Amino acid sequence: MKKKNKKVNAGILIIGNEILSGRTEDKNIAFLTNWLNSKCGISVSEVRIIPDVEKIIIQNVKQLSKKFNYVFTTGGIGPTHDDITAQSIAKAFKVKYGYHDEAYKILENYYGRKKFNDGRKKMAKMPVNAKLIYNPSSAAPGFMTKNVLSLPGVPSILNSMIENCKKYLVRGLKVHSNTINLYTVESNISKNLGSIQKKYKTNVDIGSYPFFRLGKIGVSIVMRSTSKIKIKQVKKELLNFIKKKKIKILKI
Amino acid sequence: MKKKNKKVNAGILIIGNEILSGRTEDKNIAFLTNWLNSKCGISVSEVRIIPDVEKIIIQNVKQLSKKFNYVFTTGGIGPTHDDITAQSIAKAFKVKYGYHDEAYKILENYYGRKKFNDGRKKMAKMPVNAKLIYNPSSAAPGFMTKNVLSLPGVPSILNSMIENCKKYLVRGLKVHSNTINLYTVESNISKNLGSIQKKYKTNVDIGSYPFFRLGKIGVSIVMRSTSKIKIKQVKKELLNFIKKKKIKILKI
Repeated sequence: MKKKNKKVNAGILIIGNEILSGRTEDKNIAFLTNWLNSKCGISVSEVRIIPDVEKIIIQNVKQLSKKFNYVFTTGGIGPTHDDITAQSIAKAFKVKYGYHDEAYKILENYYGRKKFNDGRKKMAKMPVNAKLIYNPSSAAPGFMTKNVLSLPGVPSILNSMIENCKKYLVRGLKVHSNTINLYTVESNISKNLGSIQKKYKTNVDIGSYPFFRLGKIGVSIVMRSTSKIKIKQVKKELLNFIKKKKIKILKI
Repeated sequence: MKKKNKKVNAGILIIGNEILSGRTEDKNIAFLTNWLNSKCGISVSEVRIIPDVEKIIIQNVKQLSKKFNYVFTTGGIGPTHDDITAQSIAKAFKVKYGYHDEAYKILENYYGRKKFNDGRKKMAKMPVNAKLIYNPSSAAPGFMTKNVLSLPGVPSILNSMIENCKKYLVRGLKVHSNTINLYTVESNISKNLGSIQKKYKTNVDIGSYPFFRLGKIGVSIVMRSTSKIKIKQVKKELLNFIKKKKIKILKI
């Protein structure tokens, strides 16, 4: 994985009626956001969940591909009629859709020539010049077209393939984070937080998230920045007012 | 809740850096998609997750508000500096942002005049003519601006408020669904499924979802339609080829 000395970002496009209908709870957003942020130094700027409709897939692939360094799609690359991600991406980029030589060989080898039926052959169809993302669990590969990486929707299969995406990605500056957990309510600290955020607005993102633990109310303050030094400075200022206000810090 | 004799749809806008950074796993998408589909006959057409950035919130609120009958936003309506949903929505619709009389009274009454500090007062600031969505757990109300309903990000609080959205919504035609679970693989049935879907393309959505259960591989076929009769017809055709192919049906 190459390194880049600046921020690298990505969009995620979850393709599937089953998520929008509430039938299936998505597991891939949490997995991908975590993996991209923590393992690749790639920040996720936007996620969209859209239905299995060609026109909508094309439109979203085009939009997100222009906006971000990378786009990850999940879903719609299986053998059935509702799996239309590959053909839609080919149309979005106006590239040829058909059998991908290497993907065809991988699948033919996996199933054996006799059991390699039309449904299975469909999984070898994609933008013909795509780069393959190998699949150690069920053979059918994902693929990368321009800056768009297409993965399956089944979480266990997606998870098994994710490391094979790395060789296509440029690593960005790592975003460090630090958290202070307080036994207080947000409204008690909102003024102080606001003024510290204003001072460091170009360097550090300060987030404030209420939590409930064993019947007590608390707030997690999260600092995120590519600079560890700036996080240290912000933390010092936070601890100053926390001490002054006699707020209890919770060690987790 | 009024009824409408046609399809009603919604978009969901999840606002929060903490979801995009992977720190917090979103729970609201699954809850909202289920509630809207099953309780309101409102289908969810798109979900977006975006950061706490005013310009981006404004742009997305405008886009989704035009595209769908309703938009649900979650997050960013608390007392801290990173809670900017209310002011962003006011800007998106060019309406006045300030203290909402009724929301102010509710919060002042809840906290008592002495404890009603600036942070808490901020939660009464919103588009001044918004309709309130009452909050039985922590008082701070959500609000509806044009066709956009804004709810908090904390799942337990959002869940407690959801029934109070109903009076503002028009119920659409209910989408019925029916599922057949088979012990087979998708590639074995993809051709048959495809031709049945083609025949019923304007009436019934047929989805195909692989599953793994006790070490066995299976496929759930899901039929969704506003017409129960059409679902019955599709089911009959599905059962025909399933019988012919001697595929085992799994009762769950």
